[in-house]
Order: sequence, then C-alpha cells, then structure tokens
Amino acid sequence: MTTINDNYLKLKAGYLFPEIGRRVKAYMEANPGAPVIKLGIGDVTEPLPEACRTAMIEAVKEMGDRTSFRGYGPEQGYPWLREKIAKQDFQARGCDVDASEIFISDGSKCDCGNILDIFGDDNSIAVTDPVYPVYVDTNVMAGHTGEADESGKYAGITYLPISADNNFVADIPSQQVDLIYLCSPNNPTGATMTKDQLKAWVDYAKANGSIILFDAAYESFITDESIPHSIYEIEGARDCAIEFRSFSKNAGFTGTRCALTVVPKSLKGKAKDGSDVEIWGLWNRRQSTKFNGVSYVVQRAAEAVYSEAGQQQTKELVSFYLENARIICEKLGEVGIQTYGGVNAPYVWVKTPDGLSSWDFFDKLLNTCNIVGTPGAGFGAAGEGYFRISAFNSRENVKEAMKRISEKFSMASV
Amino acid sequence: MTTINDNYLKLKAGYLFPEIGRRVKAYMEANPGAPVIKLGIGDVTEPLPEACRTAMIEAVKEMGDRTSFRGYGPEQGYPWLREKIAKQDFQARGCDVDASEIFISDGSKCDCGNILDIFGDDNSIAVTDPVYPVYVDTNVMAGHTGEADESGKYAGITYLPISADNNFVADIPSQQVDLIYLCSPNNPTGATMTKDQLKAWVDYAKANGSIILFDAAYESFITDESIPHSIYEIEGARDCAIEFRSFSKNAGFTGTRCALTVVPKSLKGKAKDGSDVEIWGLWNRRQSTKFNGVSYVVQRAAEAVYSEAGQQQTKELVSFYLENARIICEKLGEVGIQTYGGVNAPYVWVKTPDGLSSWDFFDKLLNTCNIVGTPGAGFGAAGEGYFRISAFNSRENVKEAMKRISEKFSMASV
Repeated sequence: MTTINDNYLKLKAGYLFPEIGRRVKAYMEANPGAPVIKLGIGDVTEPLPEACRTAMIEAVKEMGDRTSFRGYGPEQGYPWLREKIAKQDFQARGCDVDASEIFISDGSKCDCGNILDIFGDDNSIAVTDPVYPVYVDTNVMAGHTGEADESGKYAGITYLPISADNNFVADIPSQQVDLIYLCSPNNPTGATMTKDQLKAWVDYAKANGSIILFDAAYESFITDESIPHSIYEIEGARDCAIEFRSFSKNAGFTGTRCALTVVPKSLKGKAKDGSDVEIWGLWNRRQSTKFNGVSYVVQRAAEAVYSEAGQQQTKELVSFYLENARIICEKLGEVGIQTYGGVNAPYVWVKTPDGLSSWDFFDKLLNTCNIVGTPGAGFGAAGEGYFRISAFNSRENVKEAMKRISEKFSMASV
Repeated sequence: MTTINDNYLKLKAGYLFPEIGRRVKAYMEANPGAPVIKLGIGDVTEPLPEACRTAMIEAVKEMGDRTSFRGYGPEQGYPWLREKIAKQDFQARGCDVDASEIFISDGSKCDCGNILDIFGDDNSIAVTDPVYPVYVDTNVMAGHTGEADESGKYAGITYLPISADNNFVADIPSQQVDLIYLCSPNNPTGATMTKDQLKAWVDYAKANGSIILFDAAYESFITDESIPHSIYEIEGARDCAIEFRSFSKNAGFTGTRCALTVVPKSLKGKAKDGSDVEIWGLWNRRQSTKFNGVSYVVQRAAEAVYSEAGQQQTKELVSFYLENARIICEKLGEVGIQTYGGVNAPYVWVKTPDGLSSWDFFDKLLNTCNIVGTPGAGFGAAGEGYFRISAFNSRENVKEAMKRISEKFSMASV
C-alpha cells in the first residue's frame, strides 16, 4: 500500500497567497467589475527591460539554426552568466565569490525549498516571525516540525520575533540553532540588517557550526549605502552562509523565471561520522540529479541584465517601484497610519489602524477600498496587527489606491 | 552543528552522464581536434520548430508592454496550455485526463525526482534493471535505500531485470512493491510495453495499492499503432498511475525546458492513520510551495507544439530521428552487431561485441572510432554487456559514425 508523506497534513489551510487569491476571486465574483487594485502578492507589473527582450529574441533565433542551437546546458547554468554575476554582483562589492560557486535556477522559491534536500533532518531550524512562509512550509513538508498551534507556530521551529522593538532585526538566540533563515531587505517588513547586525549573526553561526540561509532577493532595492547587499560582505560568511538571489524583482522576471544561489566551496556540514563534508558538492549533486538547468533563452535574458543598457534599465525599474513605496509611506502617514520599511525595500509594513486584526484589515481594504494587500498574520503569529503593502504596481494604481485609503481613513478619523 | 543528508554519501561516483563527460573531455584534451561524434547523452541536435520560435518571439514582445506583460503565472501552468495537452495528447486517444490534472514543469527529470516529496519514506521501490539512473539516485538521496553493492545495486530497492529474455519488459513481481517506475518507450533499451503488458501492471498496482510512476517522455516516437502512448489508455490506470511527459525529445526542448506531469484526481495514497489521501492535492501543494511555474515565454512555445504547424514540424523532427535510428540498426546489423529498440524509440540498445564490458566498449568506440555512446552498465547491473546509442544527431554524423564502426568492426571480423 503506497503511503503518503504525512507531514503535508500538518500544513495549515493553504499557502498564504492562494488563500488571498481565493478571497479576491470570491469578491470579484460577487462584485463583477469592481476596480480592484492588487498590492498584495509581490508581483511586478512593469515591462521586461528592453535589453532582456532583445537578448531573448536573439537567443530564440539561435535556436532556429542547428549550428547555434542549444540542447541541454550545464545544470549549474552557463559559465558566461555565472561569471558576470560573480564579477558584477559580488566581486565588485568586495565579496570573494567565484563563478563556480553560483548555481543558476528557475527561482529562489525553488532553491529555498530544495536546499533542505542536502541537510540532515535533525538540524534545528530558526526563522524570524513574521517570515516568508516558504521557509516554514518547506520545513514542515520535510518533517522537521511537529504540529502547528493555534497561532500557526509549528513545534520544533525556533521563532525569532521581529518587531518595531528590535527594528525588525532578529536578536541572536541564546540556544543552539543549526539552520537560520535571514532575509534582508526583509520580506515582509521591508527592514534591512546593518553590517554590524549581520556580523553578529555570522559570528554566532561560526561559533555554533550553524549555516545561515540568506535571502537577498530584494538587495537591488537598497538605497542606504551602508547596508550590505550580500552576506559575503561580512568576513567569515563564506564559512557559514548560503545566499539566494533572484532576477524577479530587479529585472521583472517573476514570469520569466531566473534566480541564483551561492554556495561557497569553503562551507562545510557534519556527516554522521563527525567528518566535514563540502556543501557545494552536495548541492552540485542535487542539482545535477534533480534539475536540468534554466532555459537557454532565459539565461540570455538574465545575462543582458549585466550589460550597460540592462544595468540602466533595471536601475530605472527599481527606482520606479521605490518611488511607489515612498508615496505609499507618505500617504498612509498623512492619515495617521504607521508604516515601516519601504525605503530599502519594495514592501511597506503597515500597523493596522484601530486595532484591527490583519485579516479584518484585509477584508476591510478589499470591501471598502477595493485594495488587496497581504495580512501580516499570514507571515506568522507576530505579524498579527500588521499588513504588507507592495510597491509593485503602476504609478497610477498606487496613487489611486492611496487616494481611496486617504478618503476612507481621513473620513473615519473625523 | 549543521548536519548533512548522509544519504548523499551512498551515491556512487557520479551521475552517469557527468562521468561520460569527464572521459570525453580527457580524451579531447589528449587528442585536440579529434572528430568526436556524440551519440551518448540523449540530447537533441536539430533546430527548435519554427512554430515554437515564432510563438516565443511573440511572447517576448508581449512582455515589453505593461498591458500584456506577465508576472507570476499559475504554479501549475497556464490553462491554455494544460487544456491543449489534455485534449490533444490524452482525450484524443480516449484517455480520461482533465486539464486540471496536468501540471506543467521545467523538466521530467525534476518531476521524477520531486514526486518523492509527497510519498512516505516507508514505501518499497521497484525499478527495472537497466534503468534511467535518476529514478534510483533520487531514492538514494531521499534515504529510501541502503548502501550499494559492488554491482551498483542499492539495498532496499527491488530491481526487475529486463533483457532479451523478456523482450525488455519487466515481469510482474511476486512480492509487494509500492512505487513502481516504468518507462515506455524505454530509456535505455528502446523497448515498448504492449497494452496487455501494461494492463498486467495496472492490475497488479490496483490489487496491491501500488502507484506506477509512468515515464512517457518518448511516446511521440511510437510508430506501432498498437502500442499505448499513455498509461491512461489502460482501464483503471487513473486509480494507480502518475504519468510524466516532456517536450524535450518531440519538440527539441532540452535547452528550452518544458515538461508535464499528470496526477489524476482519483489517485489515492494512505496516511498513517489508514485514511485515503488525494495525491493530486499533495502534488498541487508541493508545486505551489516549492515551484513558481514555467517561464511564460516557454509555455507559449510549448503551446505552439499543438498548433497545426507545430504538429507537422514536431512530427518531422521525430521522423528524422527515427530514420537515424533505423540507419543505426541497419548498419550495426550489417557487421553482425546485435541491436534492440530503435523502432518505437530514439535509442538503440546494442549487445557489445566480442564479450566486451560496456565501459570497455565505450572506451574502444571513443578511442578507435571517436564515437561517444553510453555504457549499459551505467544504467544498472543488468545493463552490463550492453551499450546505448542515441539517434539524436545530424544525418551526416550518424552516417559518418556508422561508417567508422562498419570499417572498424568488419575489419576486426575478417
């Protein structure tokens, strides 16, 4: 009799974004034609940069000629892409990252989940609270947790609260944790970690033999020059950290699909016999066996991000969304709604007004303003009372959304 | 202290194809300019169909306009693609498969490996011997086996020998197995399963509560009208089978990346409490949480396969490779080398001449004819004494390769 992975049954009602999708769909069916503006899922809205499109069309043409046709590529990605990333994203910032340590993939969500394949099931796991749900759910699915309690917290996971009290940066824990997920700029809070804060984590990891899974998907939104873009800007991080990056947000690749993961060759884990094993070799084997590389055409699009034109165009894209974020913070502030983030990140973390729960605020915004955001509670128990608004939309929609909120909430406060 | 997944340490020296790559590279470095012809890895060589390229270019252009730009798509794939697949690949052959049961992915290799995520670790696993190595290696990595013995067989896996004695179709086992990998047309042997043979497996699976993981990546190469293209042509298969398909070989997508997996909603597995759980829901959850869908542009290319032009062009591609296979069988037969397969499949399964081991034959072909094939032993212990030659190459290269072998082996037999 074929058995299932029972751990899946521990998962709560559904991954956050599908749940939002269901509620919006129900609302739209009940209110056909309602002018709903979506500031919920962190999905980009602006066109793919021209440099990327030109490169893709060129690549498609190459596929039409048997002398330039490309079949299976390297599972790790093409060298010309890995080299540009190593040089421009890492070495240019003083990070000691070699092209061979960069693995191209079709998404950071995949990599964040798949990385668990290569680690032992006995590792203790730490995440921030609130947190990007994929970190938690993939650990539940892998059997690294017990059941969830009423607040949605799973037994066996160490939750590190982040709130206004600690500037949304997790305190170093007093107990031993092995795998630690950190995300800066942070999803969902929009907060960033300073060099000193990140160094404290690297020091902790080195002292405890822990590995930091560092999600830098939003690094291109950093405007403050003192904030590190990569964990490898911190001395010692090569011995204790894996970094995830994506083209989704800086270059608008959410529908085009390309990301990368850095696994330093100096990173080690423990085998059962106590010996040190190179993590790079494990990930390389995982990817070679369970992955076939990213579409050639898409890798050419990603390469174009590193051209002069691509750099200029992605910079403009990022600036565009950051200006949206600035407008959101400004307009919410004008009606007395407290916001965080939105300066070095495309997310604005909103304190729900009037003590509303975050799902109640979700329903209120949807029903009265036709605006979709993301309830903070969906990111974890400590996200209750908060709400994430994404800056990924057109200027027109952002302005219209803020106008609706301004009208609704300034009237309410009269 | 972070531990690793020790199961990775059980894996043998390397996935087959990287090992071949290493040997070819070493030979090329020692013999620069040697006119090596690769008939090893099953990688296509002919251009991507014009219909697919046209659709991709159109899709890239859409990405340049915010009104037609696409961000995150459904993790399961776009409905327009799933519907065409359901209709043309399945319903047209009388298979009861709904579009909602089709999950689009970036590769069958990924899906074959990832599918294990949703099953219990206590299932017994059966594979044929020889076998596509990914089925075995992913089970080793998931901890479903013990160590390998000298022949490369892992403890805990049931190996079902396929040889000329049983027409390369596995006999129904006498013991209970839960997850069974079947591949027809078969990689590596090129053999196919008849309706009766497949029905016997479906009956076994239904009687034993087993699930068949049916790999139909090569179905488009079937020329014999009586051979089933899908396991769902067999009554009852919806209750006991998952099917994997790919655009890699019929439409030349090895470098473009698109595949699909069919999970019928009627398929159930057992939870620990003995209750039945819908497998579709588990896979849907797995994909929603650990995958972000296939590139929009690539899905449009896959959709074009189902247009009239796309159907004609992929048919021509398949016919082209099948003619290569026919030539290989004919020419090897002329010098007295026994071959199997190559009629309903792009692979020719060769009995190594002169009692050579399959790696010795590999080295001999590489060193004396500058031809790269795949040693049968790389596919399992029972593949020893066999050798896989792929029909994926230009007509010119196939003819030249066969000329070299003819010369070498007719001289040898003089």
